[in-house]
Amino acid sequence: MTVAISRRSAVEPFHAMDVLADANRLKAKGFPIISMAVGQPSEPAPKAVRDAAVAAAINGRIGYTDALGISELREAISNHYADHYDVDVPYSRIVVTTGSSAAFNLAFLAMFDPRDRVATTAPGYPAYRNIMKALGIELIEIPLAKGGYPTAELMADAFRDRPFKGFLFASPANPTGSVIPADEIARIAMTAKELGISLISDEIYHRLAFDAADTTALAADPDVVVINSFSKYYCMTGWRIGWMVVPDALLRPIERIQQSLYISAPELSQRAAVHAFGAGVELDAVKRKYAMSREMLLKQLPRLGLEIAAPMDGAFYAYCDVSRFSNDSMAFARRMIREAHVAATPGHDFDPVNGHRTMRFSYAGDPADMIEAMDRLETWLAK
Amino acid sequence: MTVAISRRSAVEPFHAMDVLADANRLKAKGFPIISMAVGQPSEPAPKAVRDAAVAAAINGRIGYTDALGISELREAISNHYADHYDVDVPYSRIVVTTGSSAAFNLAFLAMFDPRDRVATTAPGYPAYRNIMKALGIELIEIPLAKGGYPTAELMADAFRDRPFKGFLFASPANPTGSVIPADEIARIAMTAKELGISLISDEIYHRLAFDAADTTALAADPDVVVINSFSKYYCMTGWRIGWMVVPDALLRPIERIQQSLYISAPELSQRAAVHAFGAGVELDAVKRKYAMSREMLLKQLPRLGLEIAAPMDGAFYAYCDVSRFSNDSMAFARRMIREAHVAATPGHDFDPVNGHRTMRFSYAGDPADMIEAMDRLETWLAK
Repeated sequence: MTVAISRRSAVEPFHAMDVLADANRLKAKGFPIISMAVGQPSEPAPKAVRDAAVAAAINGRIGYTDALGISELREAISNHYADHYDVDVPYSRIVVTTGSSAAFNLAFLAMFDPRDRVATTAPGYPAYRNIMKALGIELIEIPLAKGGYPTAELMADAFRDRPFKGFLFASPANPTGSVIPADEIARIAMTAKELGISLISDEIYHRLAFDAADTTALAADPDVVVINSFSKYYCMTGWRIGWMVVPDALLRPIERIQQSLYISAPELSQRAAVHAFGAGVELDAVKRKYAMSREMLLKQLPRLGLEIAAPMDGAFYAYCDVSRFSNDSMAFARRMIREAHVAATPGHDFDPVNGHRTMRFSYAGDPADMIEAMDRLETWLAK
Repeated sequence: MTVAISRRSAVEPFHAMDVLADANRLKAKGFPIISMAVGQPSEPAPKAVRDAAVAAAINGRIGYTDALGISELREAISNHYADHYDVDVPYSRIVVTTGSSAAFNLAFLAMFDPRDRVATTAPGYPAYRNIMKALGIELIEIPLAKGGYPTAELMADAFRDRPFKGFLFASPANPTGSVIPADEIARIAMTAKELGISLISDEIYHRLAFDAADTTALAADPDVVVINSFSKYYCMTGWRIGWMVVPDALLRPIERIQQSLYISAPELSQRAAVHAFGAGVELDAVKRKYAMSREMLLKQLPRLGLEIAAPMDGAFYAYCDVSRFSNDSMAFARRMIREAHVAATPGHDFDPVNGHRTMRFSYAGDPADMIEAMDRLETWLAK
């Protein structure tokens, strides 16, 4: 039988996921792997979320929901914008998605056609690039200075060089942890309006900034497409549940695409996520653990010769320069997992140009494991 | 702010989902809606599945899994092919997906490029058409005679008329319930091989045939891409969990796309689904309820003037000709839900050409509700 294979399937692997699969294989063989590869909290979802999930599972009638999501969750998210940001977002503009992964795919499909150009920053989250490539969108990468964040000027300069339809930014950013100041987001929104650029703001690391307040881009302009998720602060990665806030004009296009491409987000996760916003006390305790690990890594990584290449103001990643040890971070990552039993993600995921000299370490895991990982790296790097 | 809206977002709505949203709105207002609109079992997932879900929810550490799925589930699916079909499918060729919805998107992206042509039947599942349109694939619809199924000859005739790269078929089919005999599937596979056509077999309604044995297309050719799900026979729609069997050459392209577009299927659903295959006694009891409803509808619908336009050999749908009452099935569906409080899906979803005279009634709901729905329709149609 002929097996058709498309050209567009030749997207890059998401190397963090390859490292995860590798780590899982080695773990299954009994190796004591510590994973700092994927951005995944080791803490469970909050108690109230688990209780709601248990109730839904006992009932067992877990069905398709409205494509836009159950109204209880859309209302809870709408209330979250009022409570946390003091921004009014009617619940009708909220779309519940199967993680932020689905939200990106929905936004890109609904907003851009093949050969449209969309800009984002380098380094940046690899799935942006990979999804866009699969969908035929041309990505323009705006290189950031070490530890920097995108500005209205950087966006406008890139636009003058080569116009684009959309600009996608994240704050706090993955992998750098840098946070865009509120007034800079406002400037980006104003410049985008002048230039006719549509904005997508990835806010998945909100509530995980250490030295800055959260600013939703919706405060600057209500027509920004905002993408968020319960995966990170709310410790619900594998539940695959996120959301987007969209302008009215995009609501029906996105609903139509969601109906056929996803039907709806998993109902049990939707029912459970309703209770996530009330769990702030529990989740802030988890965040304090990240803060501890962050302090430890800020001291330890440079001591080991792994220079920190980004501010770590938010999210839970240390983005390091490993060029003292290797100019091939993919090979470095493979050796590290096999020899030191520590998994981390090669920088190539985030930056195809300069990522050969960087690695991303996630510190969302157990603080004791993070300490053990640094001990192992110290021994290993000394060899 | 500029709001970009793509041309490709102009896919048709999935009308069944619009009817579901409408039914949910009316239900929330207190109307006693009976839904025969979506293919959704009213029975809960099997006991062992619910128990495993409860255990996973109590633990609460629900994380990303390998992009291809947890090995326990991939092995359980592999064993299912040995047990149920007596076909050897190594677990390495199984990809766990976020429902069959994700499986279709992954298959189409990995196999076909924009402007490639792919054929399927009309009537057929609307999401095929809508996903392909969103991905720039040109769909060729092969019209079936009333109640018919696709044959090697129909495929070859269409191919001679206008060559295509892929052919997608379903057995049992949605909405017609028709089953392709095993020897015809073998002929389709042989002809496809001669003509260089890649095959995708949608087997989501397997184990729900009433008068025929299940035949996986893998028995005819191991390189057919097979898509299946826990949604239908296993009563797990809202869990969003399905799978595909893919030839080795497609494994890595699909893994790469899954990594960035989905990360992984929901872990809780994966853990729970492992226990679905052992629940045959429970699920066959559910199937007997469908059989009762089917017998009832086979008598009642024609008596009401709703001629059955398809064989109903499998799946849980009655595809009816409503032209005695209306030549606009969309308007007919809207009136029916508002006046008779019975929701069903306009044929337009399944067949853009002839669907204005048909409606699909799902009988996956409670048999008592199905009887009540027929009573309501009798009163309503008599007006």
